Order: sequence, then C-alpha cells, then structure tokens
Amino acid sequence: MTSSLFLEQARAIVGEQRVLTDAHDTDIYQRDWRGRYKGSALAVILPASQSEVVAIVKLCNQFDFAIVPQGGNTGLVGGAVAKETSRPTILLNVSRLNRVIEIDTQNNSMTVEAGCILANVRTIAEENKRLFPMLLGSVGSCEIGGLVSTNAGGTGVLRWGNMRELVLGLEVVLADGTVWNGLRALRKDNTGYDLKQLFIGAEGTLGIITSVVLKLFPRVDNTATAMVALGGVSEAVDLLRMMQSTLGNRIEAFEIMSRSQIEIVLAHGNGLTAPMSMDSLWYVLIEIADSDKDWDASGQLEAVLGQAMEQELVSDAVIATDQGKANRIWDLRHHVSECNKKAGFTVSNDTSVPISKLPEFIDKVTARIAAEIPAATLCHVGHMGDGNIHEVVVLSRAAYPTPEACEDVAARVNLLVHEESVALNGSISAEHGIGKMHVERLVRFKPALDLQLMQGIKSVFDPKRLMNPGTIFVGA
Amino acid sequence: MTSSLFLEQARAIVGEQRVLTDAHDTDIYQRDWRGRYKGSALAVILPASQSEVVAIVKLCNQFDFAIVPQGGNTGLVGGAVAKETSRPTILLNVSRLNRVIEIDTQNNSMTVEAGCILANVRTIAEENKRLFPMLLGSVGSCEIGGLVSTNAGGTGVLRWGNMRELVLGLEVVLADGTVWNGLRALRKDNTGYDLKQLFIGAEGTLGIITSVVLKLFPRVDNTATAMVALGGVSEAVDLLRMMQSTLGNRIEAFEIMSRSQIEIVLAHGNGLTAPMSMDSLWYVLIEIADSDKDWDASGQLEAVLGQAMEQELVSDAVIATDQGKANRIWDLRHHVSECNKKAGFTVSNDTSVPISKLPEFIDKVTARIAAEIPAATLCHVGHMGDGNIHEVVVLSRAAYPTPEACEDVAARVNLLVHEESVALNGSISAEHGIGKMHVERLVRFKPALDLQLMQGIKSVFDPKRLMNPGTIFVGA
Repeated sequence: MTSSLFLEQARAIVGEQRVLTDAHDTDIYQRDWRGRYKGSALAVILPASQSEVVAIVKLCNQFDFAIVPQGGNTGLVGGAVAKETSRPTILLNVSRLNRVIEIDTQNNSMTVEAGCILANVRTIAEENKRLFPMLLGSVGSCEIGGLVSTNAGGTGVLRWGNMRELVLGLEVVLADGTVWNGLRALRKDNTGYDLKQLFIGAEGTLGIITSVVLKLFPRVDNTATAMVALGGVSEAVDLLRMMQSTLGNRIEAFEIMSRSQIEIVLAHGNGLTAPMSMDSLWYVLIEIADSDKDWDASGQLEAVLGQAMEQELVSDAVIATDQGKANRIWDLRHHVSECNKKAGFTVSNDTSVPISKLPEFIDKVTARIAAEIPAATLCHVGHMGDGNIHEVVVLSRAAYPTPEACEDVAARVNLLVHEESVALNGSISAEHGIGKMHVERLVRFKPALDLQLMQGIKSVFDPKRLMNPGTIFVGA
Repeated sequence: MTSSLFLEQARAIVGEQRVLTDAHDTDIYQRDWRGRYKGSALAVILPASQSEVVAIVKLCNQFDFAIVPQGGNTGLVGGAVAKETSRPTILLNVSRLNRVIEIDTQNNSMTVEAGCILANVRTIAEENKRLFPMLLGSVGSCEIGGLVSTNAGGTGVLRWGNMRELVLGLEVVLADGTVWNGLRALRKDNTGYDLKQLFIGAEGTLGIITSVVLKLFPRVDNTATAMVALGGVSEAVDLLRMMQSTLGNRIEAFEIMSRSQIEIVLAHGNGLTAPMSMDSLWYVLIEIADSDKDWDASGQLEAVLGQAMEQELVSDAVIATDQGKANRIWDLRHHVSECNKKAGFTVSNDTSVPISKLPEFIDKVTARIAAEIPAATLCHVGHMGDGNIHEVVVLSRAAYPTPEACEDVAARVNLLVHEESVALNGSISAEHGIGKMHVERLVRFKPALDLQLMQGIKSVFDPKRLMNPGTIFVGA
C-alpha cells in the first residue's frame, strides 16, 4: 500500500511513462552491463529535470525509501544496481537530464547535465575546436554523471588525468532534496573545503550529480602510433621515461600487453592480425599527439624509438604509416574483453601500484598464479603509464567445466592479486571503484581509520542513509 | 600553572631549545609575512619528527590547548598566526621536518616531509632530470606542507594546475594525535572517498600534514619569452586561445599587466626599464616551453605573434633573444609588490572569474573605482590564463595621509571587488585562501549550505575544535 501510494505520487511528478515497474521495462536498468548483478528496485524513475530529481528525492525522504542513482549503467562493479534491503529502493536514472547548458570556448569549459553521453560531449567539444579528453570503452553509452561519480579513468589518464582532474564544478541534489550549487567554472578557488571533491568518486553515496562543468583543452590532432616489442616490463618503464624526456607530455597512450594476451586476441578476434612478429614476451602500444600541425609526429616517434633500439630497450618496432594501420594496432587493444570472453571464463582485476613497482608486482603475481593455479592462462594488459594493470586469468572450459570451479578460482585469483598490490602500497581498485563488488574486500584492506572517517562524512551528507545502500560501505 | 606544566612536558618531548616562549625568539613565527597579524600563541614548538608532532598533539588534547600549524610562514591571509581565544594556543612549526624521504624517477614522484622548502624540492627534482613545477614568489622560504594546506597557485597553474593537482599522497597527524596514512604514490585509486582532498586547502583546520608525495614531470628546458602590447583584456583572452590552438599546452606563463601597473614598477624599481614603448593600455608577458631541445621555441613564438599582429589582436611585441633579456621582462612582473609598496598604501585583492568574464569584470571594477574612489590609482596584474586577477589600488600618501583614511578605502575597495567577482560567479579568494583575513567575508558570500557542510566535516575530523581556531570559520 505504501509502495503504491509512492508510485502514484512519483508518477504525478515525472509522468506516467517515466515510472517503470514492469520487469520487461526495467530489466535493462536493473541488470548491470556485465550481467553479474540483478537489481531489486521497486521502480525505475526517469526524471527529466533537476526539479523533478529534487521532488523524487523529497518523496523518498517522506516514505523513507532508498535511492540508487544511475547514468549509462556501464559500471563494472555493481554500483548502479539496487541491493535488496529492509526498505524499498528506487532506481533514479538521470539519462533524460541530457542538455548541454553552455559551451564557453574562451574559458575552455562546458556545462552539461549529468545524463549527457560522453561521445556526444566529445563531439560537441570537437565542433567547437576543443578537446574533451576522457576516453574509455563505453564512450558511446556512459554518461557524464556516472563518469564523475566513479572518477573514471580510461586510456588518457597519463596525459590528461582522471575525471577528477577534468571537472571544474558540480551541481548535486543532496540526500534530503536540497540542491548544492557548486556549478562554477573557475581554475582557482580557495574559499574553504573543496566540497565537490567528495562527490567525485563517491559512487552516488553522497548525493545525485545533476550538472557538471567540464574542462576543455586545445585539440591535439597531429598523431602518430607505434607498436613495440620488448623483453620485459622494466624495459617498458624505462622506455616511457626515455620518451618523456624528449616528447614531454605528448604521450597520449602507453598501453602494455603481454604476448599471452595478444595471442588470445589473434585467436578469437575476427580478421585481426599482428603487425609484427610475435616472438617477444611483451608489447607496448603507443600514441603521441601534438597541437602543432607542422610538428613531425612520425619522424619524432621514429627517432626516439631508434634511440630505444640502440639502447636495447626495444627489440622491434612498427610505426603506423596511415590511420588504417594505426587502427589495426589499436584493434588489438580494443578487442581484449570480447576475445577473452570467447577464450573461456575470465577473471579480471583492476589494480594499480607505483609505476616503478610494476615489474615486481607482475613478477610476483605471475609466480603465484603459476604455482597456485597452474592450469590458468595469465594475461597482462593495462594502462602502464598510470601503473594500472589488469591481471586477467583465462580458464579454459576444458580445465574448468563447472561454474563452481570457475568461481572458486576467481576468488583465489582476486585475493592473491589484491594481496600483492596492497603489499606494494597499491590499490585494489584503480579505476573501476568499489560498487557492491568490493565492499567486503575494502574492509579487509582499507585501514579502519579511513573507513571511520568515510563513515563520518557519509553521516554529514546522508544521515538517513538513503543514498545507494550497500555501495562502498557494508550493509544497507 | 597549567601553562607551565604544559611547557615542561612539551620540552620533554622536543627538547629545551625547541619550545620558544621568549618574545625575542617567537617574533619571527608569531608575526605574519606582511606584518598585518601578530599572534598570541603561548609558545612556538618545533618538533623534528612525526612522532614528536604526535606527542605534542596528544599533549594539547590532554590540556585542551589549541594548535596552529605553521610552515614557512609566507601566507598572505593570516592562516598561520594564533588568534586570541579563550584557551591557550600553541604554534606548531613543522620546518624541522625537512627530510626528502624518497625520489622515485621511474614513478615520477618524490616523497618529502612537510617542512621541505619549495626551492630545495625543485632543485632536487632538477638534479634527477625531473621538474616539480610549482612556482611562486616565496619559493625560497615557503614549505611543502603549507603549500598543500593552502592549495597554492602561482604562475604555473595554466599548464600544471594548482598544488591539488600536484599531490599524489599525504600523511596527516589528526586533531586527536592519530596518524592518517595516505602516503601513496598512485596515479589511480578509486577505493572510497578521496580523503586527502579534504586536507588540501584546509589551512590546517583538519590536521597537520607531515609528509607529502609530489608528482614530478619531464623537464621543459627549451623556452622562449615575449612581451606583447594589446588594446584590451578581451584581445588578451583571444590571444591566449589563438596561441593554444597551435602551441597546445606549451604556454608556461601568461601574465597580464595594465600600463598603470608597469608605470609604477618603472618609477620605483631600481634600474628596471621597459623593453618596448609604453603607449598601449595592456601588456602580456608570455613564456612557452617544451621538452624537445630541437623544437624552435623562438621561431614558433614569433610565428604565432606575427599571426596575432595580422589579426590585430596585438599591436606590438618583443621576443627576448637571450636569457638576460627574458629576465629583464620577468623582472617587471616580479617587482610588482615591492614597487607598489614604495608608491603608497596598497590594497590588493585575489579574485578569480571564468576567463571569458575577465574583460567584463575588469571593466566593472574600473568603472566603480573611478566613480567611488577617484583619487586612487588602479593597477591590474595577474595570472590571466587562470582567470585570476589581482586588482591593486595604490593610494598616494599625499591624497590619503592617515592610516584611518587608507583602511576605510581598503574596506570599500575589497567589498566592491568581491561583489563584482561574486556577481560573475567568481571567487573572493582565488589562491591565497581564507585564513583569518576573510572569515567574515566568507560568511557573507558563501552559501549557508556550503558553510554548514564544511562545519559538518570539521566536526568529523576535529570535534574538540583544537585545530587552527578562527581560520576559515568564524569564532574560536
């Protein structure tokens, strides 16, 4: 009865069609992108404006219903699905808040609503001769509010930083329905605690982001791409630093892949071929870019790689002579998830360590996997320039035929990877966040003092604990 | 009696010589750099290690004494002086915590204690073929802990960001003496709320920063410097964006000065001369820099400025042909404070607005000063690329002979500048912070909701309100 009264009032706010309760309609919202979580929200509500968000949040306060904010629903850790709790939960999807409020090319900034899709934001920036540099696999469906809430990373962090570094201002509907207005477009503002930093990466546990001011940058259209073969991870670290000493921050991407990973891509990717021989254990995919159209990108890349070969850091290198060849190189990277899925049951991790510790980290994980799970194929792929490596274990269906056997191995792999990462002062979740997936793991590895301070902040912003229960924090 | 017991115990912790109470010894710590504040601390305590800081903080908790953290004491808003309150306060100076803990060139990071002086950190980075890019006037005496606590800005923000963007990790002694360990050197870490963001810019109100992990960068040694004359501020904004479209982020500094400001520098700076004719109203000082030694910095600067002259953005330009000439240009900028002081009583502001609003902001302030304080000389000088302008009013001693007359005008100037800044969604303190100087002003211009949330956070970290009373927040 309470629920039906709530739904009736919610419909009065956003309209009949925007309160979804039928499983047929709600499924795409309630199921996460990987298909690992199925939400239990009473309804999916789709407000079209900030004032509708406010009204829905106030209604939830009245009924003591919990709220899970959702954007493009592309998260990988279950942060945007509703957990079963003692009180009803609604899924508040902001996709209809998708207006571009302002583009200010003289300020190099752009103000957009939270539901704007990343690809659209990038296109609008481009049309205005600017760059919005955030880039990740789900670019065509992830939304700005979710990218901010999860402090997204992606392939451009080495040069441009995480989402945190790309945000100038935020507007947030707080847990009680008041609006916090931090929608400023300033490069410098030292007037007390920088409150917006708390909402960035809070995964919707402190409020609902409704608008964002993004930083824009000069375009960097003059690019060159290469793939290089190396003997080991420490050579790759040396190569990065050597390249930076002459190319500075022109290095746009520096992605490492083990041969084991490329072999899986070549075996399962339709029509994908290797642009060079596969006789090395490690490969790095490199893109450099500059604003200056007259700068000789390919020539500079060739020169620095030549130098690296002389110093025996690199054993072989291929530079793409046209965009088609560059795409062929990047296809190897972009088809990783899809090909691993075809190869077997996949256990993936998202850890980071100081870049200088990457060789040691990878050695230790490799040794432990070989000793403890000998039938597994271990692949390494990641954003080397950020110290962010995905340790991917692929289990063949022949060796691990049952889901139970796979899940057991998955738990063992995750634990050992996390142990080795934490031992090197690293992170158990570099870019994906905690969501619902890692809440228990966080309690295990995060110091109690950190958790206590986080709980204190949570209590300031959401004393009734309505926002995204079961995310980041254990319990409802 | 309580005080002498406290001092006795403090001396047992840090040593007899490190607890200063004699006015002769404490004066340089108790008086702020500008000479506007005189602190009332019971003692100045100089611990030499984190464990000594912990012990002193625990002692303060025992005695219910307040604590003002201090570094190089170069702040401009009285954040590091002790305010008279109902309970005794000690000044805790961290200058003796000055060890370089680690330099990790492969991770492009450096771990230092809070008392390290900025110039030394920059030198050590340089010796390791790296750059630590923070740069501001007090480089020779300001300390890393203070730079983090105030989220310092300076001349390099356009390219490198504020101090916030240059910090990877922090270690902080909290108000109750527990140590919060966030001393990680990671580029990506999404495991809950990013607690370090709260301490950055908190001006010592949430804890005492004892160690910091700083980001390092590839060196950019290939530079070129120019000074250009323009008709107005909007031409300067256009010039910046035009330059960025080809030079990308190579623009290291883009500082604007009004003719009125340069004239004061020329009149009062010993031996300073103008490198070009002074018949324009506005001038911009530009430095570009690249890592690539073969890049033609001067040639590129000349080309883009030639283009700007063709488009009539710029009326005149001079490019420094050697480092001596470059220094001559920068001397005009670096002698501003000193020369203004010689010219009369100076009222300075530190505001920011979106860069696109700078022309409107400056027009409005100029018109109001002319109408309301006609005898004043108004100078404009600032970090244009950050929207951060210092509106400086110089009052001649002839027109304003008494301190009272000057203070009255100062209050009127500050208020009108803040009003115009806030009207354009700007900041009343872009880089200097709130300190003790702007606490009442913050209450006037900051939304009540922001202040309430800030108070909530303060209560989580410092429930007994021992840390830096009277800073950021009104009252003890």
